[in-house]
Amino acid sequence: MIRVDLNSDLGESFGNYTIGLDESVIKSVSSANIACGWHAGDALVMQRTLHMAKENGVGIGAHPGYPDLMGFGRRNMAVTPNEIKAYVQYQLGALLAFTISIGEKVQHVKPHGAMYNMAAKDYSLAKAIAEAIYEVDKSIILLGLANSEMIKAGEDVGLRVASEVFADRAYNADGTLVSRNVPGAVLHDTNLAIKRVVKMVKEGKVTAISGEDIRINAQSICVHGDNPEAIVFVKEIRQKLEDEGIAISKLSNFIK
Amino acid sequence: MIRVDLNSDLGESFGNYTIGLDESVIKSVSSANIACGWHAGDALVMQRTLHMAKENGVGIGAHPGYPDLMGFGRRNMAVTPNEIKAYVQYQLGALLAFTISIGEKVQHVKPHGAMYNMAAKDYSLAKAIAEAIYEVDKSIILLGLANSEMIKAGEDVGLRVASEVFADRAYNADGTLVSRNVPGAVLHDTNLAIKRVVKMVKEGKVTAISGEDIRINAQSICVHGDNPEAIVFVKEIRQKLEDEGIAISKLSNFIK
Amino acid sequence: MIRVDLNSDLGESFGNYTIGLDESVIKSVSSANIACGWHAGDALVMQRTLHMAKENGVGIGAHPGYPDLMGFGRRNMAVTPNEIKAYVQYQLGALLAFTISIGEKVQHVKPHGAMYNMAAKDYSLAKAIAEAIYEVDKSIILLGLANSEMIKAGEDVGLRVASEVFADRAYNADGTLVSRNVPGAVLHDTNLAIKRVVKMVKEGKVTAISGEDIRINAQSICVHGDNPEAIVFVKEIRQKLEDEGIAISKLSNFIK
Amino acid sequence: MIRVDLNSDLGESFGNYTIGLDESVIKSVSSANIACGWHAGDALVMQRTLHMAKENGVGIGAHPGYPDLMGFGRRNMAVTPNEIKAYVQYQLGALLAFTISIGEKVQHVKPHGAMYNMAAKDYSLAKAIAEAIYEVDKSIILLGLANSEMIKAGEDVGLRVASEVFADRAYNADGTLVSRNVPGAVLHDTNLAIKRVVKMVKEGKVTAISGEDIRINAQSICVHGDNPEAIVFVKEIRQKLEDEGIAISKLSNFIK
Repeated sequence: MIRVDLNSDLGESFGNYTIGLDESVIKSVSSANIACGWHAGDALVMQRTLHMAKENGVGIGAHPGYPDLMGFGRRNMAVTPNEIKAYVQYQLGALLAFTISIGEKVQHVKPHGAMYNMAAKDYSLAKAIAEAIYEVDKSIILLGLANSEMIKAGEDVGLRVASEVFADRAYNADGTLVSRNVPGAVLHDTNLAIKRVVKMVKEGKVTAISGEDIRINAQSICVHGDNPEAIVFVKEIRQKLEDEGIAISKLSNFIK
Repeated sequence: MIRVDLNSDLGESFGNYTIGLDESVIKSVSSANIACGWHAGDALVMQRTLHMAKENGVGIGAHPGYPDLMGFGRRNMAVTPNEIKAYVQYQLGALLAFTISIGEKVQHVKPHGAMYNMAAKDYSLAKAIAEAIYEVDKSIILLGLANSEMIKAGEDVGLRVASEVFADRAYNADGTLVSRNVPGAVLHDTNLAIKRVVKMVKEGKVTAISGEDIRINAQSICVHGDNPEAIVFVKEIRQKLEDEGIAISKLSNFIK
Repeated sequence: MIRVDLNSDLGESFGNYTIGLDESVIKSVSSANIACGWHAGDALVMQRTLHMAKENGVGIGAHPGYPDLMGFGRRNMAVTPNEIKAYVQYQLGALLAFTISIGEKVQHVKPHGAMYNMAAKDYSLAKAIAEAIYEVDKSIILLGLANSEMIKAGEDVGLRVASEVFADRAYNADGTLVSRNVPGAVLHDTNLAIKRVVKMVKEGKVTAISGEDIRINAQSICVHGDNPEAIVFVKEIRQKLEDEGIAISKLSNFIK
Repeated sequence: MIRVDLNSDLGESFGNYTIGLDESVIKSVSSANIACGWHAGDALVMQRTLHMAKENGVGIGAHPGYPDLMGFGRRNMAVTPNEIKAYVQYQLGALLAFTISIGEKVQHVKPHGAMYNMAAKDYSLAKAIAEAIYEVDKSIILLGLANSEMIKAGEDVGLRVASEVFADRAYNADGTLVSRNVPGAVLHDTNLAIKRVVKMVKEGKVTAISGEDIRINAQSICVHGDNPEAIVFVKEIRQKLEDEGIAISKLSNFIK
């Protein structure tokens, strides 16, 4: 049976601020990336989100980000590998404590926003992240961009890794994402997006922006729960994948 | 053999800011309370301080505080038990991850500043702290003010508890600390302070401000490493205790 | 002509987080209390909110709060008068710069949440707030709870003051608000609430929870824009006040 | 008479953390760059530093930085011109309020750390900073790196600008600073450093790392007060400049 994970960022509310339709999207995904209080989320939100993940049988992931609540962790910051390693370990630890307290395990770590994007391209940052995780619990899976430095670094360090793909993003011939600044970088036709995802999962291939088919490892698909339309799309993509005989399953069930 | 622990707050530096003579004071204490990034400390400082604690064979403690870096966690804040529980678990988790990464264990938790003072008097806050710890690792010791609600709550929850005394503070007849606003609350005669500590440790008694001897459980003595004079005092108190046949020993060696 | 001000808290969004139906509620109020980046709001949100206030001809107010974004400034903190004075001056200054940059003036200052509540009862904190404002611009109006220490302190310091009333809150016989913990503290009947407000504005009287009529100075009414129901209520109260021949007018038009 | 300004960063302490020998260095400089609470400094520190600047007759400057207390504002962040403009206006306003409250004026703005370095090279960021200042008070001087985009942007916007030089840094033939990564970027011979400064001030020239003399506008020299050696150097450079007949004078005395 072919299996794929659906992951979504959750627990991004903070204090008096609510963001994301967490209770809806969690019904359709198999893994949750839970913000850890730096770029988003707070201690109480983390607890609530973990309980929700447990109730829904969803894989629990730490979603560490830069210390930039004001920028939601989306702005590149000139951090060193030592800093990023300490930041990931700190945030992973915070989530770990809450997870232990409810008798669960941390399944994976997926860096957030600018940390994710920078580490996808910079091996030294990616390696720092992988080492941070390995030193805390070597059974945790590193979820990173397919074909990126994060996947290489995770393997080098000895972690299990999971390759993430995006339904609505175009790919370059070398397997990297087309920059959002380039026309055609984002696909707006949801039917096309879903067809591409099915092909990625079933055939391990995607048609690059240059026209040729390239290999891609699609182990987890990133989906969003920001607004009602996003929820509709998540349900649709899940249904289509199941219609194609693909099982939606959390990472720990099939990543080796 | 009579044993007592000497504990000190460490790892309170932050970013570009350095505070405390950590490398000196750690030579003389048996347990370290390591700030966890909320009222003081940051992820890199936590790592450095943990390495220092490991090298010196000192018991590792989490020192969680209020989210008030500007006030160094010393200002009372109207937090609920649910909030304080989540805050402690978050900060303990962060330290836990770093501790695991160097192959060590968290020995104890000692709340900081206003959190410590409020929980000493408020059973519901104290219980929330104790539960936070218990749910993460029930083998961790709660270090709290002797005769306080923290000691009661820790016992009620099922944690091992350690009673802390202060060499330079006067005690009320009911075993609580005399408020700093009352004349005589702080002892400035170091010889007297040391004599009182020896009596507390050897006889389990202290002379209250009202003149009578009361019972006190002196399992750990709080010392400071803020300035060179404080370092001299720590060395002196340690020497005097050893001269009296009292062994300085970390909490995990003797707390049951 | 009888005049009254309608004020609302605005600009409480932060970074990626949106809160409040600011664009709706600003159509119905005469004065805006703009969060200044400590308990809520950020520099970009402040700019946007100021432009909105200018376009709608609404009185511009600084809404300083405690340094507690996590608690939305609603948690009491043990701050000193010196601290609160510096905090208010800092936040007022930030708003002042944005206000100058669009050719407008700061009309008033209304402290937020826990700062408001603490200063309403503590003259030393209230005086510190009043002095903070006076030293920056003595023409700014202090908007505070009717019959509170803030009104007294503002007058003592030499500021113009405006007394704020709440449509949905019960009053004690001494003119203070009934604590939210007491049954009957909050009125849920909007018709009754509106009738009370009309009486407060026209007669300067309110029926206390103890049954007797007491004097109250109703120069500004606090309304909310958190949700669609709140917007409906604001429109209704505005209409009813106008039907009673009361003009809705910003503070600077009538406070002496 | 030839005049030059000596400027130093001051008021970088935060809460319980003290940094910098402010009370010493302020005796020798003519202008103070006061941190505004984002990368360093807090509301109480700003007040204290302003009083110190007033007592010493030193020009008062705002020293805005990135929202990165953890990194002391020294890490590049991917901020937009709109963000940087709002950040500068916010921080300038905070300092402005404190300055007004003691009857003084803001003389200049000098961006801090990564904001300074990024704006020195990026005209759009530099222009955003200049506009932020101009909109608040067009009489404020922009203090920026000699030959940088900041000087150009300040002039374009209509501000008075002051060119800053560094005694201990090597210059490229195009007038820019040699990157710290290049050998020879930092001069360690204080006599040589002082000779270079005298030449810069008297002749408007500096010998570039490539060997040729280039033109440089030396209106303000950056000095530090971090440690006792730095204080000695500041006194020495001041003495040597005066010995050469150069008057140390704050920017507002001679910048047109």
